[in-house]
Amino acid sequence: YTIAALPGDGIGPEIMESGLTLLETIGKKFQHEFNVTVYPFGGAGIDETGDPIPPQTIKGCSEADAILLAAIGGPKWEKAEKTPEDGLLQLRKTLGLFSNIRPIAVSDSIAHLSPLKTERVKGTDFIVVRELTGGLYFGQPKHWNDEEATDTLFYKKSEIDRIVRQAFDIAMTRSKKLTSVDKANVLASSKLWRKTVNEIATEYPEVTVDHLYVDAASMKIIQDPTSFDVIVTENMFGDILSDEASVITGSLGMLPSGSHAVSGPSLYEPIHGSAPDIAGKNIANPMSMILSVAMMLRQSFQLHEEADALEKAASEVMDAGFLTADLGGTTTTTAFTEQVKAILE
Amino acid sequence: YTIAALPGDGIGPEIMESGLTLLETIGKKFQHEFNVTVYPFGGAGIDETGDPIPPQTIKGCSEADAILLAAIGGPKWEKAEKTPEDGLLQLRKTLGLFSNIRPIAVSDSIAHLSPLKTERVKGTDFIVVRELTGGLYFGQPKHWNDEEATDTLFYKKSEIDRIVRQAFDIAMTRSKKLTSVDKANVLASSKLWRKTVNEIATEYPEVTVDHLYVDAASMKIIQDPTSFDVIVTENMFGDILSDEASVITGSLGMLPSGSHAVSGPSLYEPIHGSAPDIAGKNIANPMSMILSVAMMLRQSFQLHEEADALEKAASEVMDAGFLTADLGGTTTTTAFTEQVKAILE
Ligand SMILES: CC(C)[C@H](C(=O)O)[C@@H](O)C(=O)O
Ligand SMILES: CC(C)[C@H](C(=O)O)[C@@H](O)C(=O)O
Repeated sequence: YTIAALPGDGIGPEIMESGLTLLETIGKKFQHEFNVTVYPFGGAGIDETGDPIPPQTIKGCSEADAILLAAIGGPKWEKAEKTPEDGLLQLRKTLGLFSNIRPIAVSDSIAHLSPLKTERVKGTDFIVVRELTGGLYFGQPKHWNDEEATDTLFYKKSEIDRIVRQAFDIAMTRSKKLTSVDKANVLASSKLWRKTVNEIATEYPEVTVDHLYVDAASMKIIQDPTSFDVIVTENMFGDILSDEASVITGSLGMLPSGSHAVSGPSLYEPIHGSAPDIAGKNIANPMSMILSVAMMLRQSFQLHEEADALEKAASEVMDAGFLTADLGGTTTTTAFTEQVKAILE
Repeated sequence: YTIAALPGDGIGPEIMESGLTLLETIGKKFQHEFNVTVYPFGGAGIDETGDPIPPQTIKGCSEADAILLAAIGGPKWEKAEKTPEDGLLQLRKTLGLFSNIRPIAVSDSIAHLSPLKTERVKGTDFIVVRELTGGLYFGQPKHWNDEEATDTLFYKKSEIDRIVRQAFDIAMTRSKKLTSVDKANVLASSKLWRKTVNEIATEYPEVTVDHLYVDAASMKIIQDPTSFDVIVTENMFGDILSDEASVITGSLGMLPSGSHAVSGPSLYEPIHGSAPDIAGKNIANPMSMILSVAMMLRQSFQLHEEADALEKAASEVMDAGFLTADLGGTTTTTAFTEQVKAILE
């Protein structure tokens, strides 16, 4: 198993180290060989090579079986000609990572951490399927000068088709309930989106489909989060809604995500950012990275037993009261990692 | 004072009747003449004339001193060639209503109604200033067919300039804290937006300005709503974030909004929609409409004493325990209105 690791910026290197340490432990325990190569990416790429996504990083990622990304960005590179974020968008586009999957779940034991009233959020368990290589992020023309600015929200039907099918397939493995989010009362692209969803729905008669406008969806995620099963939406709406959804769990530091292409390596990464304010202090919660590693083991390598072992060990450590600062505890990043390692060994 | 009233659809006519009854009471008490004309608009416009915004409605609104709108839309007209929503967009554009102001406040007495934990939401008091006649809603090209779809997010600098100035002016009357929301790490239009905000900021040295990405803003509205004072953002982001913000109050039925042009009449309306499911049952909360009337009295007619009297009477009725179904009570729309009327008289 060849893995490209992109530690990136801020707390990125710290949580990546945690993830890779435990990957090695899993490898020893279950006798797999994980060939991990670390590549410069994001701000670290700029510092090392002048480019957030240098050629060797693109090459290494393309040739890998899977990619682990920790986090990128920070004030230092905000004014760069090519920013860390530009590098991330280029990576997604180059690898064709059109499908971003973000599970949002609130187990009873952490429901009290939510900013929402506990009764309201308890039992929340849904998946946001976000289109990742189209829409307003990539459409042309896209330019600005001192007088005016233009971005373009463009979708080919085939781009909508493949992400929507992916969402239906996921819904089939769950409660068979799909919510498609658009703004079909205003946007032309949403009209094509909605039509495409309705067409594909006829091929999945078991799945109950409903449509929500994006503004209504932003309300319902707060008012009634347990009502969702699978949400599918376009790139920009997915960016906003998946981040909104992530905070209702009260544990942003614990959420992994996976991005997939039609063929080629998938990329796994925490949902949260690089948190420059707490970087280098050994206090970041490595759970999101650990769970991203588990997601990779399961989804890219079909190593289900290994993924289960890792997730179980990590949650045992939490249950034993070893909590990082974001969850009100005092456990350091490395101490948490060592505890998980000890259980695995 | 000439007023154009657009009751629209769903619960619209019921809450409009409440608002107009109390406007008349205020008129008698303070000896003003309010000349109210009701015009067909939205689904009601389609049913009456085939057009959600018939010529007489445009003319009546343009010539009025202020416009009251209740709510529009519903499943009945979703497939219309020109929908109620199209009519609303046309009205905004025709009257140049570029600035939509939505106050979001959570008084201690209603904080327990919020879906957020009470301690977290208590004291929330901010204003969302949304650009309303530009961006993704109106940019050209905008079209779709069975193969592809395009929307265009276009802004002239002058359009950004005027809404941002409006937001700075509002911030000057409050805690002098402005949060500009964009997606400047991805969108060209957001880069011009951010640059314009920073330029105008030099003219308002007393105002503290910060910039948030829209995804971060969607999180912070839930995590730390009391940290905001004035938020300014473009049309599509404003649609999503102001609706998200409105539900954290737990009392969507109580929120008014105002939309303003460079010159000409302003429009006042509840934040919520037409709620077809509860229409005709005399159970809708008329507070949002009553507060929209008060906003009109204050902002369009400078009738501050009158606005105060109306707001005070309405909140006395609520304090006395007369609550509509959305707030857990059993008071009807008309009974609530009669109570307020009695206090005013
Ligand atoms: C960093 C940024 C470009 C990115 C996005 O908007 O897609 C991030 O917010 C995300 O959600 O992965
Ligand atoms: C009805 C719709 C077109 C409208 C909008 O998106 O502007 C509504 O959601 C609003 O916020 O006033």
